[in-house]
Amino acid sequence: MGILIKNGTIVTASGRVTGDVYCDEGTVAAIGVNLERRGAKDRVIDASGQYVMPGAVDPHVHLALPFMGTVSADDFEAGTACALAGGTTTVIDFVIPSRGVSLLEGLREWDAKAKGAVSDYAYHMSVTGWGESTAEEMRAVVREKGIPSFKVFMAYKGAIMVDDHELYQVMKAAAGLGAVVMVHAENGDAVFNLQRELVAAGKTEPKYHAASRPSPIEGEATGRALMIARLHGTTAYIVHMTCRESVEALARAKAAGQHCYGETCPQYLLLDDSVYEKPNFEGAPFVMSPPIRPRAGGHQDALWAHLGSGILSAVGTDHCPFTIEQKRMGKDDFTKIPNGGTGIEERLALLYTSGVCEGRISLERWVDVVSTSPARIFGLYPRKGSIAPGADADIVVWDPAGERTISARTHRSKCDRNIFEGFKVKGKPSYVIAGGRVQFDNGDLKVERGAGRFVRRESAGAPAPGMRAVPA
Amino acid sequence: MGILIKNGTIVTASGRVTGDVYCDEGTVAAIGVNLERRGAKDRVIDASGQYVMPGAVDPHVHLALPFMGTVSADDFEAGTACALAGGTTTVIDFVIPSRGVSLLEGLREWDAKAKGAVSDYAYHMSVTGWGESTAEEMRAVVREKGIPSFKVFMAYKGAIMVDDHELYQVMKAAAGLGAVVMVHAENGDAVFNLQRELVAAGKTEPKYHAASRPSPIEGEATGRALMIARLHGTTAYIVHMTCRESVEALARAKAAGQHCYGETCPQYLLLDDSVYEKPNFEGAPFVMSPPIRPRAGGHQDALWAHLGSGILSAVGTDHCPFTIEQKRMGKDDFTKIPNGGTGIEERLALLYTSGVCEGRISLERWVDVVSTSPARIFGLYPRKGSIAPGADADIVVWDPAGERTISARTHRSKCDRNIFEGFKVKGKPSYVIAGGRVQFDNGDLKVERGAGRFVRRESAGAPAPGMRAVPA
Amino acid sequence: MGILIKNGTIVTASGRVTGDVYCDEGTVAAIGVNLERRGAKDRVIDASGQYVMPGAVDPHVHLALPFMGTVSADDFEAGTACALAGGTTTVIDFVIPSRGVSLLEGLREWDAKAKGAVSDYAYHMSVTGWGESTAEEMRAVVREKGIPSFKVFMAYKGAIMVDDHELYQVMKAAAGLGAVVMVHAENGDAVFNLQRELVAAGKTEPKYHAASRPSPIEGEATGRALMIARLHGTTAYIVHMTCRESVEALARAKAAGQHCYGETCPQYLLLDDSVYEKPNFEGAPFVMSPPIRPRAGGHQDALWAHLGSGILSAVGTDHCPFTIEQKRMGKDDFTKIPNGGTGIEERLALLYTSGVCEGRISLERWVDVVSTSPARIFGLYPRKGSIAPGADADIVVWDPAGERTISARTHRSKCDRNIFEGFKVKGKPSYVIAGGRVQFDNGDLKVERGAGRFVRRESAGAPAPGMRAVPA
Amino acid sequence: MGILIKNGTIVTASGRVTGDVYCDEGTVAAIGVNLERRGAKDRVIDASGQYVMPGAVDPHVHLALPFMGTVSADDFEAGTACALAGGTTTVIDFVIPSRGVSLLEGLREWDAKAKGAVSDYAYHMSVTGWGESTAEEMRAVVREKGIPSFKVFMAYKGAIMVDDHELYQVMKAAAGLGAVVMVHAENGDAVFNLQRELVAAGKTEPKYHAASRPSPIEGEATGRALMIARLHGTTAYIVHMTCRESVEALARAKAAGQHCYGETCPQYLLLDDSVYEKPNFEGAPFVMSPPIRPRAGGHQDALWAHLGSGILSAVGTDHCPFTIEQKRMGKDDFTKIPNGGTGIEERLALLYTSGVCEGRISLERWVDVVSTSPARIFGLYPRKGSIAPGADADIVVWDPAGERTISARTHRSKCDRNIFEGFKVKGKPSYVIAGGRVQFDNGDLKVERGAGRFVRRESAGAPAPGMRAVPA
Repeated sequence: MGILIKNGTIVTASGRVTGDVYCDEGTVAAIGVNLERRGAKDRVIDASGQYVMPGAVDPHVHLALPFMGTVSADDFEAGTACALAGGTTTVIDFVIPSRGVSLLEGLREWDAKAKGAVSDYAYHMSVTGWGESTAEEMRAVVREKGIPSFKVFMAYKGAIMVDDHELYQVMKAAAGLGAVVMVHAENGDAVFNLQRELVAAGKTEPKYHAASRPSPIEGEATGRALMIARLHGTTAYIVHMTCRESVEALARAKAAGQHCYGETCPQYLLLDDSVYEKPNFEGAPFVMSPPIRPRAGGHQDALWAHLGSGILSAVGTDHCPFTIEQKRMGKDDFTKIPNGGTGIEERLALLYTSGVCEGRISLERWVDVVSTSPARIFGLYPRKGSIAPGADADIVVWDPAGERTISARTHRSKCDRNIFEGFKVKGKPSYVIAGGRVQFDNGDLKVERGAGRFVRRESAGAPAPGMRAVPA
Repeated sequence: MGILIKNGTIVTASGRVTGDVYCDEGTVAAIGVNLERRGAKDRVIDASGQYVMPGAVDPHVHLALPFMGTVSADDFEAGTACALAGGTTTVIDFVIPSRGVSLLEGLREWDAKAKGAVSDYAYHMSVTGWGESTAEEMRAVVREKGIPSFKVFMAYKGAIMVDDHELYQVMKAAAGLGAVVMVHAENGDAVFNLQRELVAAGKTEPKYHAASRPSPIEGEATGRALMIARLHGTTAYIVHMTCRESVEALARAKAAGQHCYGETCPQYLLLDDSVYEKPNFEGAPFVMSPPIRPRAGGHQDALWAHLGSGILSAVGTDHCPFTIEQKRMGKDDFTKIPNGGTGIEERLALLYTSGVCEGRISLERWVDVVSTSPARIFGLYPRKGSIAPGADADIVVWDPAGERTISARTHRSKCDRNIFEGFKVKGKPSYVIAGGRVQFDNGDLKVERGAGRFVRRESAGAPAPGMRAVPA
Repeated sequence: MGILIKNGTIVTASGRVTGDVYCDEGTVAAIGVNLERRGAKDRVIDASGQYVMPGAVDPHVHLALPFMGTVSADDFEAGTACALAGGTTTVIDFVIPSRGVSLLEGLREWDAKAKGAVSDYAYHMSVTGWGESTAEEMRAVVREKGIPSFKVFMAYKGAIMVDDHELYQVMKAAAGLGAVVMVHAENGDAVFNLQRELVAAGKTEPKYHAASRPSPIEGEATGRALMIARLHGTTAYIVHMTCRESVEALARAKAAGQHCYGETCPQYLLLDDSVYEKPNFEGAPFVMSPPIRPRAGGHQDALWAHLGSGILSAVGTDHCPFTIEQKRMGKDDFTKIPNGGTGIEERLALLYTSGVCEGRISLERWVDVVSTSPARIFGLYPRKGSIAPGADADIVVWDPAGERTISARTHRSKCDRNIFEGFKVKGKPSYVIAGGRVQFDNGDLKVERGAGRFVRRESAGAPAPGMRAVPA
Repeated sequence: MGILIKNGTIVTASGRVTGDVYCDEGTVAAIGVNLERRGAKDRVIDASGQYVMPGAVDPHVHLALPFMGTVSADDFEAGTACALAGGTTTVIDFVIPSRGVSLLEGLREWDAKAKGAVSDYAYHMSVTGWGESTAEEMRAVVREKGIPSFKVFMAYKGAIMVDDHELYQVMKAAAGLGAVVMVHAENGDAVFNLQRELVAAGKTEPKYHAASRPSPIEGEATGRALMIARLHGTTAYIVHMTCRESVEALARAKAAGQHCYGETCPQYLLLDDSVYEKPNFEGAPFVMSPPIRPRAGGHQDALWAHLGSGILSAVGTDHCPFTIEQKRMGKDDFTKIPNGGTGIEERLALLYTSGVCEGRISLERWVDVVSTSPARIFGLYPRKGSIAPGADADIVVWDPAGERTISARTHRSKCDRNIFEGFKVKGKPSYVIAGGRVQFDNGDLKVERGAGRFVRRESAGAPAPGMRAVPA
């Protein structure tokens, strides 16, 4: 059974046009004018006055993540359901082997968890240490498993942090594989010490989380990761950038001709650190790393400006919520509050409202940063991130007239808090088509446990020209 | 008679995909997989192994331009034929009324000249002074004539230069009309004085042209134009950027959230000021403003870096050649050498060779900067710059295996010099389809005088949020 | 009769040391340890626990200035008395010939007015237009009159503003004379238009003065002036810098190796634009150009940082007060409010309090920016700005334990408003010795009308290496 | 016996003046005009036409340093003799305890070696690891030993490198002591790996030393050290800065208001990496870390610009020569070439020639960067670095008409190579007075083994305001 979407404004990253899209057997069969049904049973969707866009790709989620002694509140089934309800048809989760566990063993754990996924998904592979076999495992992960992107953490000392030697090795190995290296950029040694000092001084409330990770700590690590990537010609992708210092470091690298990317998240664009002042431990849901930044530093303005300029390439969520009960593990010590918040369902609407409707970014740029760019950067394109012949029939019909108020009472996440509680947003999906099936139909979510497929990806190939003294 | 392009790699600004394109009645009717001929007479083009891309848009050409006492060597017929042969299916020329001549009178002159065009074309309207009726004329030009982009010259003192007061008025009026203001950014007063001093000192050879317009003069004017645009929320587009100082000024504006664009040209990316050292007045063909820059300042590297980063948005040509005989008007005084050179036919191949093949920009970014971005910025999209349902059937089939050596002996321009003489380039069009007709067919150019159409454009609408003390 | 200052902490721009200073016949005769009186009548001042510093130099004052239809409230006698009372022993006023009046004629007017000065003084010469004889007059001003510094205004359109052509000529002529060019950097065309628009919209209150001159207007002009200076190798000195954009432009020029200077004033370091919100026209005393800046832009922080880093070289006052009655000329139109405020008496204490006591700059840097640097930049050193053998005996004994509250009720200015009203400051002069006489003695000001001398200065000599196409 | 220096141009960091200086009992007794001998035996030096300046301070030397398996070629006696002959009257050497050796034990070793010094000297204390007692030892070093400056190495992995955790601790402890932290800023992990890869690839010649430490590696570490210092409000001093990336990082920190310093060395200002191309292992004498930089990156221009602007504060030498025989330890492996070169005798003349005579810096700035600033930053002022009452009688009479050619054949160093071989320099000391004795008298060096004194220093006191979450 095919689907014919008629008369919508088809929006891609590069422009918009009025036309029709016909999907069949799970893929896009044609884009054209005055297309007609091919089969009598084909469903026809009238998209007049609405936007027809490629299903969004969330490049940064953590579902069922064991972290800081607990597990993030949304598992693959719940998280991908949220995603679909918000217009996101593919998510990329992070396999995070514990330090000492092999990459392939980690991958097996994740495969088991991901079975419940209702949307398509892919993985990034985290490298949390460096051993004799790591390079070989990285090769297998890319070549055999279809996972050509790695993640390193410059923070979380004593747990999953890599030091500069390890970072160098990962960057070098990735360059040889044509893989992207994603970086959580914070100086973990500085954070570790500031945390220790704060707690020792009795400063244990959630707001001290922000104090323990000031923005220069992120800016520094961003510059360091980019430098090491540059030595090898590795494509670096800095995740969840939050501050002026970081985006300025990224802009400097790009001005020097470096091939690199930056991602931010809705919470860093829209919130400020006053959230940590909420009474009754209600700042805890906002405890994530890096933290939400103060308004005074101009961080949010800088992120918006660089999202518009193209210096930032993508908006992910870092969706990794914990219930207030889970957050209470750090009731007496902010360093024990599990880090993370919601966003997977709200990302498109938040960006549409504050970005497109308020004139900060164009409609096309919105599609780009939530869908096309993540798909291209991570090798999902054109299967994902496009409305193109042969692409997966992952399509969102977006109703610009939609309105709703975000709330934990109504969201689909299993978490009992939403960090965007009370935000009034504009625009909402009318239809979300994924894999050729209408899975969200005017508010009605129809998903099937396990229907999501793992998406293999290809590496981008050879590294960019770097500065390496010795060719790889 | 339709055209069916089969099995090509369809490349857009946002990605590439394998598929078919069917054109009918001058527009794109469908993009899909396994498309079939609709009529028996439909021509089928096998694009296997080749790129199928939207016809390119040259946002910056000067055909039959009366300038410095002569007229540029390519008229509309010749220039647009060159364009088609090189893969450019739409050009935007500049109406330049002499100072004191009304905009609408200038437009009539241009309309007369443009009748011979063989490709589609549009105009930008130059504002070379400010009078009581200029604002009203600007409104008519946008609203009635379909020309929502204006050009100002901060150089050419005593001729078409505007001062800051005039620049302010143009920016203000354009903001109210939702029009783009294009800026030739050089400090005309400084140039005027340096020219005078050089000539007085007997320094009259072509190489002193470069000495009379050093890069800080361009960087300064770029910053000034952007500031005045920012006051009004006007969208500024800086043409033919050549140097580090300029692109850094543009990058600063974008980092501050300003809505603005920058264009460069192949000659500024690929040549350096050693061209002015050629003996026997053979530096004269390279006399253009701004001039070609020295390698030592890192200008070319900066332009490439910012083309890759997205800070620069478009590559035009500023095609405005003069024969060596015409150039000889300035044999004894470089200030009298008519300014300008070739490029309209060579732009795509030059960028493909030095940009894509050498790994500086992606294939998609190449399509973006030569076609999609110019089309979007100037309101031609989706009719131009896209392969989308309903778009004009302006399509290039690009053969990546093509090779040739650029030479004035073989180019189609009427000019007897080519500033890229001897450049070996890769890639060439196999087919150029414009308006639904195959006008270039494996080396065979089949054009019809006057077949080119004037393309009306719509303004982008309201200005971006500016800093104006008084709302417009 | 000599003066022997014993046991003070002698503070210079480069360090501090405990010792004695002996002055005789109006100059410093010796600095040493355990110096003794040479004559029985020598006065001995015990400076234990106090700072002994060179008399301060205010490089930027306007006394008895005819401006905007009135005359600034402090004449030379009053203004220089204020200066002495505050620790400033030399002021540099600006000769400002009306447009069309010759430089030498202007100088004669100023000489007449300056006769009442009670402290030493010098002049800068303003060039407010460019005529056939201007270059020759500039030569005479430098060579014959001992005035090797010129001032240009890029603002005040229709009055004393120079355009870029004129600016170019002044910079060129000054380079040939080894003279410094001081620049009031605001884009006068933009200001003129914004003023007109605001007034036309009925926005006539003092606060719209700030709205008519936003900081990008100053930043732009700063960059432009520096570029034109760079072409000639002229030493530029940007006066009264107020904003982040301006100091960043200055820092960029210095990073490129340009020889240039920047000055700020206490009001730009210490106040913010909330002063314009005062009711009952009490914002008018703060109307000056450029205006006081908003706190949110980080302007004040940037000025302090660059004062500490050395990018900014001097702190002047732009002392040019008008009484509230005079300010009322602009009661119904802010563009008619005479521009300017107080500062000549308060400068040292304000900087000492907010700079030294609050740890932003060192004691030595304070001496540098209020005394030594202005003296060196403008050719007064070592006669002024130093405690050195043969230097004028202009010495301040500064009591760090002093305290007072600034108020128009107690200041010595003839103006009835003080823009620092209510500021509590630390430190005050115990003794101010000028020309070898104790003119301020623990609060008791003993001055003699006309005792101030005009100080001839030498030009610095040849210009710095510039970028001029044609050597001067 | 006193010394009376008559009629010289006394040059300090803040200006110049003609006058006399009288020294007695090892200190400066008076500066004045027409001073007369106090004792009949007083020596009178006629300094007419010459500069009288404070003896220079070299803040960065390594005498008799055990390093990389050998010992630097000049011991304290030889090195300080070179210093005196060149106009440097005080040197600051680095105590470098081996990793695991206590600071105080290291100090005892240095005290033993320093006994032969012929000029005054002080120490910086290197911290090469972090243990339980390190903070306490640091306190003793500052408070009891008079050494308020520490040094850390971010390079030399496996030997004396500190990691970020250790760097954090040192910065924190130093802030509490009001001590300066000096930083060798290179990313040691990156260097270590690049070295390993180069050697493994058979790239073992001296020129690969430069390839193993490209400038981004230094720029990154500079930014990192400054960030960690900023967290604590520690005063950081980046030693031997060589490249654009580093000085830009320093400039950014200063623009943000951070209290920090940068030092460069003559070799980085004057040489370029072509020195490594010398045949017959003659590139080895130039092997030092960081390495000499390529001309193309604009590094040397950037260093000069920032030396002029004040962003860089001091010029040291990093004097640490090894004979060609010693260098041959790395004949087959550049990583084994002992790092370091000459400079202690040549610093003043090199800077005078290329800085002052070529118009890049003023005479005063020259005195500042070679003498006054190092003295002030490290707490030697006013005893050193000044000509002030009570200061040590360390004075250089500098003959601007002097000329010589630098050569290993004529230099006083024990090393058989001079990295400035063949440089023609202008200016030379006529007299070098140290501790009140004429130790260099028109080419005749009269020194006494062991006459040099250790100079205790005071810490600057409290740290600058930092960003620390927990007050120290």
